[in-house]
Amino acid sequence: MTTAATVLARCAELDRISARPHRLERVHLTPQHAAANRLTASWMAAAGLTPWQDPAGNQWGRREGRAPGLPALVLGSHLDTVPDAGSYDGMLGVVMAVAVAERLRGTDLPLALEVVGFGDEEGTRFGTALLGSRAVAGTWDPAWWELRDAEGVSLHRAFVDFGLDPSRVGEATRTPDELVGYLEAHIEQGTCLEAADRSLGYVTTIAGARRFRLVVLGEARHAGSTPYERRRDALAGAGEVVLAVERLAQAHGCIATVGRLEVHPGAVNVVPGRADLSVDLRAATDAERDGMWDVLGAEIESICVRRGLRLEVAENHRAPAVACAPWLQQAVVEGIGATDDHGRDQPMGLWSRAGHDAMAMAAITDVGMLFLRCTDGISHGPDEGVREIDVARGLDALEAAVLRVAAAVEERT
Amino acid sequence: MTTAATVLARCAELDRISARPHRLERVHLTPQHAAANRLTASWMAAAGLTPWQDPAGNQWGRREGRAPGLPALVLGSHLDTVPDAGSYDGMLGVVMAVAVAERLRGTDLPLALEVVGFGDEEGTRFGTALLGSRAVAGTWDPAWWELRDAEGVSLHRAFVDFGLDPSRVGEATRTPDELVGYLEAHIEQGTCLEAADRSLGYVTTIAGARRFRLVVLGEARHAGSTPYERRRDALAGAGEVVLAVERLAQAHGCIATVGRLEVHPGAVNVVPGRADLSVDLRAATDAERDGMWDVLGAEIESICVRRGLRLEVAENHRAPAVACAPWLQQAVVEGIGATDDHGRDQPMGLWSRAGHDAMAMAAITDVGMLFLRCTDGISHGPDEGVREIDVARGLDALEAAVLRVAAAVEERT
Repeated sequence: MTTAATVLARCAELDRISARPHRLERVHLTPQHAAANRLTASWMAAAGLTPWQDPAGNQWGRREGRAPGLPALVLGSHLDTVPDAGSYDGMLGVVMAVAVAERLRGTDLPLALEVVGFGDEEGTRFGTALLGSRAVAGTWDPAWWELRDAEGVSLHRAFVDFGLDPSRVGEATRTPDELVGYLEAHIEQGTCLEAADRSLGYVTTIAGARRFRLVVLGEARHAGSTPYERRRDALAGAGEVVLAVERLAQAHGCIATVGRLEVHPGAVNVVPGRADLSVDLRAATDAERDGMWDVLGAEIESICVRRGLRLEVAENHRAPAVACAPWLQQAVVEGIGATDDHGRDQPMGLWSRAGHDAMAMAAITDVGMLFLRCTDGISHGPDEGVREIDVARGLDALEAAVLRVAAAVEERT
Repeated sequence: MTTAATVLARCAELDRISARPHRLERVHLTPQHAAANRLTASWMAAAGLTPWQDPAGNQWGRREGRAPGLPALVLGSHLDTVPDAGSYDGMLGVVMAVAVAERLRGTDLPLALEVVGFGDEEGTRFGTALLGSRAVAGTWDPAWWELRDAEGVSLHRAFVDFGLDPSRVGEATRTPDELVGYLEAHIEQGTCLEAADRSLGYVTTIAGARRFRLVVLGEARHAGSTPYERRRDALAGAGEVVLAVERLAQAHGCIATVGRLEVHPGAVNVVPGRADLSVDLRAATDAERDGMWDVLGAEIESICVRRGLRLEVAENHRAPAVACAPWLQQAVVEGIGATDDHGRDQPMGLWSRAGHDAMAMAAITDVGMLFLRCTDGISHGPDEGVREIDVARGLDALEAAVLRVAAAVEERT
């Protein structure tokens, strides 16, 4: 049986496939991408899966079920990284999927089992995320061919250089009837499990997001001679906005962040006349997200009115929340229940604040996710950490979840 | 008698000497500077003053007192402007000084009367302020010769181009024994007089200032997946700092401004890891200013400690407050008292939040200042406004103040 130790050793082996000497960076359609696919394919073959690389550069492996050509349950995640990455965001889910396939090698299943390592989830190279899973989901946008990396290389050119035929990217697309569902294991990238002293959790939804660009307009005036009652200080207003975003999102169980703030004219001795800021808002459901914005937008408006500031608001991004399918949530819950991580009543349900390949896959099939505890909530950095005991429980849970899915498929037919 | 209407007409005449077609810009050592000096010299001559331009480019006029060579009371302000300036900041004080000299033409005085129009107070062209009055005060710094304007022209070159000999700048310096004092009329650049429904006020001190550069260091992390309890959001901390600066300075009767704030990395979906901000602090006295910083610095420190942020503080500017000489304050008080602007008990004393030529002149002689009400506290912009009645009262007050100074000099001797 493939153990947690093997899984961690394989993650460490993937760590060595990096574009940089002392830090991990493995991005889309590079020699490192090809090398990671090759290594993963070798593990797939050893696990009894038939490996292939699809026309979008994703690495797949498949074993047939009790009859050839049955719809597949897909397990997987992504093999690419951010710059200066940790060892687990994405890769752990792929390596665990291979390990679970290996464990189930001899098991009679009423479905095909597939494992996928997506080639691009992070969007590091071309700025647009989920290029791998969106090709599979058939939500590819031809405008992407003109996306360029930092060296000016287009996505189209990178496909060709990688040995792929851009005109065949549509052949990477899978259809709903070929699929039973998609299950993804991933580190939590948060601290809920750690705080609750749990190894594992199941995901209820993947966050809905909205992003706004705010312009707060006051009046640039002399910092010495303009008394407080005559100031319309755009930065003081923006400061209140930043704190309101923090306070209200926290009170409503959402996550909201002001990541960008620019002040004009930005001179030491001038009261700021203008502040430009961003608000990134995430919530478990679209309704919560939109309700949060109703409250927050009204509060921001009232801050500006009180201070005699003019406010301009433009929404520049909106992504719906993706719900994990209840029956796959249930399979993951029962999978966790089959491990020794249930000292307390019920496995822990979480909403994912970050995006995942499962968001894209939801366009063509039901999705479910298993979260593993990580150290201090850190992701996207070399300090990412997971504990071996959590990986061991994760393997048990994912294996049990697959069996639960198989049982559900059996019941249906 | 030179009337307020004449004074306002002369300000309008100066308005036409501008480097730009539809907005006022008249800066140091330009053809506009020379033209303003010539025009002012013609008014001086008409007022019975003997005009000359000093080796630093300042325009002077003098009439002797009852004996030649007596120490002089200097009245004046500056003739240069900020870009896109109003019509009164500086010029009004020069034009009023000429008008008062004209009114006192036949009066027997135990002092010489001089009027000065300084060539640079704003520092618009070379970035360093008070170049005119600092030459007169003997506080010229030879390092300034290498200051350059936006076109790369050095101050040294500009002196030569203007027809001045840089090696003779020291000859612009006046000595304390040549001077009785310096009296400057200026628009308030604030709203205290307007709020109190007064035309005039006397200045008690010119603000002491300190400037600080703060760096707030947190941790840049994923905006989606980092829960609030794990955030060390540098911008949220900086937002609290901005509001604390506003709240505490207001509570302590000081003026403090955060004019600059830069956020890093400044990405929509990243919790800010660093914020760089400026604090500009002004108060009536050095003790109040320093006491204010003690309170404010401690509060900023405690905000950062509470949020797990690291704080770096560097002081990059410190200017002592300049007190107006009590006997010249008294002369201005009595001058105001001689007008019909004292419906209530006592003329209004103000501390100047902005810097003035009087700050530089204080190095060599006693200084006093008369403030005139201006519209809505506006200065450094085309909307600067003064009312004719306030100028009329200002002329009366300044004339009476000169007579009070003359009486004080008489009493001394």
